[in-house]
Amino acid sequence: MRIDTVLVPAELNESALPGQAVAVVDVLRSSTSIVAALDAGCKEVIPAASIEEASKLAETLGRDHVLLCGEREGQKIGGFDLGNSPLEFTPETVKDKTLIMSTTNGTAATLRLKPATMVAIASFTNAGAVYQALKRSGAPATIVCAGKLGRFSLEDLLCAGAIVARALEEDAKAELSDGSRMAAQMYKKYAKNLHRILAKTEHGAYLISLGFKNDIKFCANLDTSLTVPILLESRIMKS
Amino acid sequence: MRIDTVLVPAELNESALPGQAVAVVDVLRSSTSIVAALDAGCKEVIPAASIEEASKLAETLGRDHVLLCGEREGQKIGGFDLGNSPLEFTPETVKDKTLIMSTTNGTAATLRLKPATMVAIASFTNAGAVYQALKRSGAPATIVCAGKLGRFSLEDLLCAGAIVARALEEDAKAELSDGSRMAAQMYKKYAKNLHRILAKTEHGAYLISLGFKNDIKFCANLDTSLTVPILLESRIMKS
Repeated sequence: MRIDTVLVPAELNESALPGQAVAVVDVLRSSTSIVAALDAGCKEVIPAASIEEASKLAETLGRDHVLLCGEREGQKIGGFDLGNSPLEFTPETVKDKTLIMSTTNGTAATLRLKPATMVAIASFTNAGAVYQALKRSGAPATIVCAGKLGRFSLEDLLCAGAIVARALEEDAKAELSDGSRMAAQMYKKYAKNLHRILAKTEHGAYLISLGFKNDIKFCANLDTSLTVPILLESRIMKS
Repeated sequence: MRIDTVLVPAELNESALPGQAVAVVDVLRSSTSIVAALDAGCKEVIPAASIEEASKLAETLGRDHVLLCGEREGQKIGGFDLGNSPLEFTPETVKDKTLIMSTTNGTAATLRLKPATMVAIASFTNAGAVYQALKRSGAPATIVCAGKLGRFSLEDLLCAGAIVARALEEDAKAELSDGSRMAAQMYKKYAKNLHRILAKTEHGAYLISLGFKNDIKFCANLDTSLTVPILLESRIMKS
């Protein structure tokens, strides 16, 4: 199995996407929130590149039939129903609902990946399940770290490492790019202290300063879900 | 001291360059070659973004007064005097000469950095000296990994780590970005086996396949030079 890891979205060669199975990672927090929302029984998550696009889509679909979710600078967007905390996505709130989600990094990164053969959403909570889905696809895999405003985020790389580590467990000769090799190495170093390192990353520390301490804890849970959210056309659903 | 590390050139926020002291790293091989060339007594190295630009500049300055150097896909450019192997830059060949250099990654990455307060060229061979120069500048430091054709190269990150490690030795509370923290961690892991890991990186393995085994060995030498090449206007000279 060949696994490439892209450290920031700008490193991605979009023309190489067709034929690739891609996993996009935004651990803090949109990937983790999407997994949580689907686990809580929401019907689908529609990623929107901007607040305007999200609001427009909500009008088209009927404002009462959807939940508008997302953040800017970590905070819930004014007029939206939910922010970007995975703890908000409970069955009581989201069951059978269509969610329209606009986040600073994750949703924009996801939409760029459409030309790929498969686009899965990956977090620590579903890392093992995503690895299995990438493997089943039979295609060369690329893990895209969403980062933050174009910059690198360590937590996303560590999650990529959790996926690569799974591949190495099954096949020590898995073909890894420099980025994937680094991801596996960094994950190995921090696997036993995911919560602690997540709290120390630049974005983790920022979220804690906003009061989202429990989010960090939740986002550090490994393999608590078997859900693999997949982008189908413009909607994210359970595979 | 604040040290940021940019993992691929596209991660760089160019508008933030003024006021920053920047070190650009292309371990395999342009950074190492520039340090070697200046150590061998060359007068200056003029980076050129393209083969055409290099050739044009050579005509302007007088073809007999300069040495044209550089590579494409690791190989010497047709009609050029030298390639991009640090072993070529001997006193016999380059002493008192002006070198015009065009490489696939390093020279293009360097030219984009002009707006910075200081631009130094860093390799393993001069990592300690570059750290001292960044520190002396008093400005926040950014290390830019040149990578390969827009993609990440592990050897550049490891060299960034060698510089960050020096900062941490002097001040355990140095302010590090996620990228810098990762660089220091990866360097710590491989510091005792630089030659071995360089040979295993994607680009290292490629260069070995072209017959440049001895280059890899040379590029893995740590702190063998006190030379800090600095970009002044459009020329690289000893600081």
